[in-house]
Amino acid sequence: MIVANSLCDAARPIGIFDSGIGGLTITKAIIDCLPHENIIYFGDTAHHPYGEKSSHAIQQYALQIANFMLSKNCKMIVIACNTASALAYSLVAAHVANQAIVINVIDPLITWLSKHYQQQHLGLIATKQTVASRVYQEKINNANVGISLCVCATNLLAAAIEEFGDHDILTSLLELYLTQSSLQNIHALILACTHYPIIKKRFVTFYQTQQQEVDIIDASAITAITVKQQLTAYNLLNKQRCIAVKHF
Amino acid sequence: MIVANSLCDAARPIGIFDSGIGGLTITKAIIDCLPHENIIYFGDTAHHPYGEKSSHAIQQYALQIANFMLSKNCKMIVIACNTASALAYSLVAAHVANQAIVINVIDPLITWLSKHYQQQHLGLIATKQTVASRVYQEKINNANVGISLCVCATNLLAAAIEEFGDHDILTSLLELYLTQSSLQNIHALILACTHYPIIKKRFVTFYQTQQQEVDIIDASAITAITVKQQLTAYNLLNKQRCIAVKHF
Repeated sequence: MIVANSLCDAARPIGIFDSGIGGLTITKAIIDCLPHENIIYFGDTAHHPYGEKSSHAIQQYALQIANFMLSKNCKMIVIACNTASALAYSLVAAHVANQAIVINVIDPLITWLSKHYQQQHLGLIATKQTVASRVYQEKINNANVGISLCVCATNLLAAAIEEFGDHDILTSLLELYLTQSSLQNIHALILACTHYPIIKKRFVTFYQTQQQEVDIIDASAITAITVKQQLTAYNLLNKQRCIAVKHF
Repeated sequence: MIVANSLCDAARPIGIFDSGIGGLTITKAIIDCLPHENIIYFGDTAHHPYGEKSSHAIQQYALQIANFMLSKNCKMIVIACNTASALAYSLVAAHVANQAIVINVIDPLITWLSKHYQQQHLGLIATKQTVASRVYQEKINNANVGISLCVCATNLLAAAIEEFGDHDILTSLLELYLTQSSLQNIHALILACTHYPIIKKRFVTFYQTQQQEVDIIDASAITAITVKQQLTAYNLLNKQRCIAVKHF
């Protein structure tokens, strides 16, 4: 149990990490929701893309970054990467224990989907490793609210966003992935990689061009709300007005 | 020293491996050059792309595959992957010792370039890991024939070829990579990844469209000649007319 003993505890930073720039979509949502928090952002670009690494390698990277966050006295660690959330959350949470709150980007989304998309057919795109983990299918099945989920690996997408940013070539890549037969007739498409919201407008434009009504869902705002709820529950919300974002 | 003691030794297969389908360009060249040889091809698609893995991981994969090739009684092992050639050749050669001949795809090309492109300015594209190894720059410098080399990482290219094959999206990717300023005014472009020759026509078309005379060089035919020379030197050329290509 983490309990704030003083204003000093609340002023401790939130540590956020991702394999690269993807977690900045989560970071922006957290800053929008909690503008007084101090943030440390760690983009593990040396090891990007996580989606192509072994489970063991990803778990080791996540533990090393968690140790770094603890050395910076973080009150909360946000695993702002779906692949690391899928493969390393339990390990990091056990390792960190009561030194900080650990948040992943999957559980808040599953809870939200279970409320808003009952009995619907959803598509989900993610990295190879996230898909292989089967974490989304298992959690959706456990929620038992009649959601059917079609999960597809979009192997090149995160790497292409990391390499080229929001470039026109991403529209060509999207078309190749989204026109596959398994992703037709869906009510919503879940962007289950924090890189994908960087090109969210291209997803919206794609379905508009196709004259299909498909909601585009990402975990950023939903995760930010969970961050706020957890900090409130533990009396760790920062009341000071200074904010510093450090990017490692 | 490997010496053929009988026809049986010469009939032993050549083992060829790559991270995926790229090494098939080398395999085709070897079959064209040596149509009587038995071939075992190992495409390590479970670990593709090598270009994004750590040096240690690539070395471990290469040693495991070399052991597999030895278990199949290969007389020669061809590392038909530039990244594995750059990072694991010495290790594999030492491990295999006198059980088989080990060939990489870099040394034959360096020897050939040193004869045909003296005093010229060349471009070279490869995976992130091959570029980071600096093996081409060092070997070209050691050749001391006045070749200047501009080396660029084309991070997504091998993965895109593995994912989509020879698809039009590769032309868009090529344009993004080849128009960068560092790759201008070159006499030739070296395709230093065995995946790239799969889309060789797209490179040729790109430079034709740009009205630039740039030779497109890959190591497949050059490596095949080296394979023949080595087998001849060790009296291991197969004289039988049966051929079997096994793909693992």
